[in-house]
Amino acid sequence: MAKKPEKLWQTPADDALRWVRGTDLDALDESATPGWAGKRRDGEELMASRAPELADLQERLFAHGRTGGDRSVLLVLQGLDTAGKGGIVRHVVGMVDPQGVQHTGFGVPTEEEKEHGYLWRIRNALPRPGYLGVFDRSHHEQVLVVRVNRLEPQKTWRKHYRELNEFEAEVAASGTLIVKVALFVSAEEQKERLAERLERPDKHWKYDPGDIDVRSKLPQYIAAYQEMLDRTSTDVAPWYVVPANRKWYARLAVTELLTGALRSLELGWPPADFDVETEKARLAAS
Amino acid sequence: MAKKPEKLWQTPADDALRWVRGTDLDALDESATPGWAGKRRDGEELMASRAPELADLQERLFAHGRTGGDRSVLLVLQGLDTAGKGGIVRHVVGMVDPQGVQHTGFGVPTEEEKEHGYLWRIRNALPRPGYLGVFDRSHHEQVLVVRVNRLEPQKTWRKHYRELNEFEAEVAASGTLIVKVALFVSAEEQKERLAERLERPDKHWKYDPGDIDVRSKLPQYIAAYQEMLDRTSTDVAPWYVVPANRKWYARLAVTELLTGALRSLELGWPPADFDVETEKARLAAS
Repeated sequence: MAKKPEKLWQTPADDALRWVRGTDLDALDESATPGWAGKRRDGEELMASRAPELADLQERLFAHGRTGGDRSVLLVLQGLDTAGKGGIVRHVVGMVDPQGVQHTGFGVPTEEEKEHGYLWRIRNALPRPGYLGVFDRSHHEQVLVVRVNRLEPQKTWRKHYRELNEFEAEVAASGTLIVKVALFVSAEEQKERLAERLERPDKHWKYDPGDIDVRSKLPQYIAAYQEMLDRTSTDVAPWYVVPANRKWYARLAVTELLTGALRSLELGWPPADFDVETEKARLAAS
Repeated sequence: MAKKPEKLWQTPADDALRWVRGTDLDALDESATPGWAGKRRDGEELMASRAPELADLQERLFAHGRTGGDRSVLLVLQGLDTAGKGGIVRHVVGMVDPQGVQHTGFGVPTEEEKEHGYLWRIRNALPRPGYLGVFDRSHHEQVLVVRVNRLEPQKTWRKHYRELNEFEAEVAASGTLIVKVALFVSAEEQKERLAERLERPDKHWKYDPGDIDVRSKLPQYIAAYQEMLDRTSTDVAPWYVVPANRKWYARLAVTELLTGALRSLELGWPPADFDVETEKARLAAS
């Protein structure tokens, strides 16, 4: 290929995907590849070529945490069933050292979790300094599934927008860089992916009859996502909306967002907190 | 290559590495490649070829956990500084989906941890059903660093052998398959690896002046390891002793041990707990 694949980002992923308040989510083309002028093969090539840099950046973050630094990164993944959150974790997060990753999936709250406020389990899962935290679903479900299924009265869940923003501002102020990604597949693509789960015995475990109920409420979910995006995309915790009908694009896009986030920390290698020459002499004598 | 690389295991890793009580640890050749008749390149080739199977086996375990199963796997990694525990996590555990991994590194106990018994933090980190737990250091430090540095009187740490075995019997009975790996590098190899950490600014953060103190106590550590291996290698939680001067061999060996452990669970894909045809009809109508 003559052109370096990264040049195929005509608009950087960060700019092309960052949510602009008031954009009509209903009009999103889930098959689009915003910002990217290349083909699938180019995308896969670029993604593979990012692996060493991503691993290097993550290791710097980890080293920073081990030497008293306070920075961490939190990747929040939201999306309806089959949107590809799991694939992002496997293929993007899977490129870095598992020692530096804190992954948490948030499902229906357990009995213990229900005894606390909804942010309790979220706080417990926040990345420690030096770590890349990954949330598969998150505190934002409080204005998604909770709203759509009327698990709380409107006057209660309406308060959560402000609470979410205040919480994230606090998390960001403590040193955590927050990157929020919402993945969207079209209704037709979702149907195909659910059909595959029903066809293949090795995918049955991923299928939940409740998925069809969610499908029947798609318009309500889109409305809930629209308001969530409009109200909780902030400077310290922006939302990126990623069309995900093309899995390779979604993975490439999140790779770019994550790489960009880690780069923005501008972390060098921590300086030695010991005298190198003294230690060399001690080692030589040992 | 004419021969399939897995044939180069003349003795399966499980047999070649499993600790036999009373073996003289002092006589271990840390540069040896027990059971393996191939070269480095063959080993790397075999390891790469295991990746799809290892990922598949781990996904079956995860699916099992998601559908009510109680099995999990716990990989315990022990070894002195520079033995390569981190490399095992990155290169072996890194082959499977990070969603299914629970990794915990155990360092000097925190103040909160000190307020509890030494097994408290271990219990909190045990893998949930369906997960691959990885311990970088473990409860066995209670008969290693605690013994060598005399952090407890002898009559106290001597009791831990039995406690460790009882604890692991309980963990195994709850459904967790335990694989314990002790990695050993020679004193010369350790010196080289520490020297590299001192030479390279990107490795300074991995260096701790205390590493030299540990080095000065190598004979005491080897004695502690000897007794730990002899007394805590049990049928339900066997120790595997891996010579680790050759990183490629140590990684290959742990790949084989982990693959073998997962295979031994003989997990198929969980059957559907819903009527597939009914769901296909619901999906089609949705």
